[in-house]
Amino acid sequence: MNETLRVIAERYSCRAYEGGLPEREKIEAIAKAAVQSPSGMNRQPWQIVIITDKGFIDEMDAEGMRILSGMEDRSTYERFMGRGGKLFYNAPCMFLILKQPGTDLDCGIVSENISLAAASLGLGHVICGMAGVPLSGDTGKSFRQRIGFPEGWEFGTSVLVGFAKGVGAPHAPDMAKIRYLEKV
Amino acid sequence: MNETLRVIAERYSCRAYEGGLPEREKIEAIAKAAVQSPSGMNRQPWQIVIITDKGFIDEMDAEGMRILSGMEDRSTYERFMGRGGKLFYNAPCMFLILKQPGTDLDCGIVSENISLAAASLGLGHVICGMAGVPLSGDTGKSFRQRIGFPEGWEFGTSVLVGFAKGVGAPHAPDMAKIRYLEKV
Repeated sequence: MNETLRVIAERYSCRAYEGGLPEREKIEAIAKAAVQSPSGMNRQPWQIVIITDKGFIDEMDAEGMRILSGMEDRSTYERFMGRGGKLFYNAPCMFLILKQPGTDLDCGIVSENISLAAASLGLGHVICGMAGVPLSGDTGKSFRQRIGFPEGWEFGTSVLVGFAKGVGAPHAPDMAKIRYLEKV
Repeated sequence: MNETLRVIAERYSCRAYEGGLPEREKIEAIAKAAVQSPSGMNRQPWQIVIITDKGFIDEMDAEGMRILSGMEDRSTYERFMGRGGKLFYNAPCMFLILKQPGTDLDCGIVSENISLAAASLGLGHVICGMAGVPLSGDTGKSFRQRIGFPEGWEFGTSVLVGFAKGVGAPHAPDMAKIRYLEKV
């Protein structure tokens, strides 16, 4: 198994972080991997906003948890309370992906490049769609302004990055999801 | 730069293939990388159908080109004619990703794992949404039946894989798409 296949095989979604910000050099390497992603017609319909202000991340976290706690279905809120009560798991850095409408597939590609780049550098990471919670609707307007969402751009997804607290393991891959259509 | 970052940096979308099918061992390694992808809530809303029947790929290719040639806007048709007249660039293998509705982001993640796994093994590859053309609508029904689309599953995207004809180069990354939100 080559190194890239090993990184893919051993990658896991990290849901507990500790310590400060990873080295700037690593953050920049991950950012570069993000913009090296392929996209339909090479339109690159993304913007990458790297939030390293932990106070700002914590503000979004608190607002997101407040929104979840007020929802009729509290299962998501309870799930995060069971994981330590933090929507962003105490991560010191968020790679926020802004997208143009209708480009979720491209956004997924970018999020995986960020994830694998982080994994290759030994950093914990997790693709986190929950960042959309505090950024949505009227209450999210001031966050969107502070982040600087350009007109017509939307929240795509985010990837949290930092030093993993503890060690995680990947899911067992479901090989039953693979089949072959061969010449018979 | 580590090996994974190098694969990400040097990866390019291959639009010309030659020769036969890559070794089965490599196809299987790529398939495994596909199902090792992360997904929202670990739902893994995908199925991977690996089409290695070149005759079947050529049938879909011809039908796709027929559909494109009949469209009012012939720019897509002309683009493929300018690239050799083949929708699938003579690729011997198609990783077809079926998805559940509304899971484009997960589908993008899988397509990138397939792409990077192929790149790490020295194989040409390109994410190819055009495979949706012959699979769509009434005319696509027989293809969908032969492939075995389960009820409720849709075309996500595809990744073509094979031996590259010639050598390609990656796009220059657009570093202007990156910005930082730092504590000031």
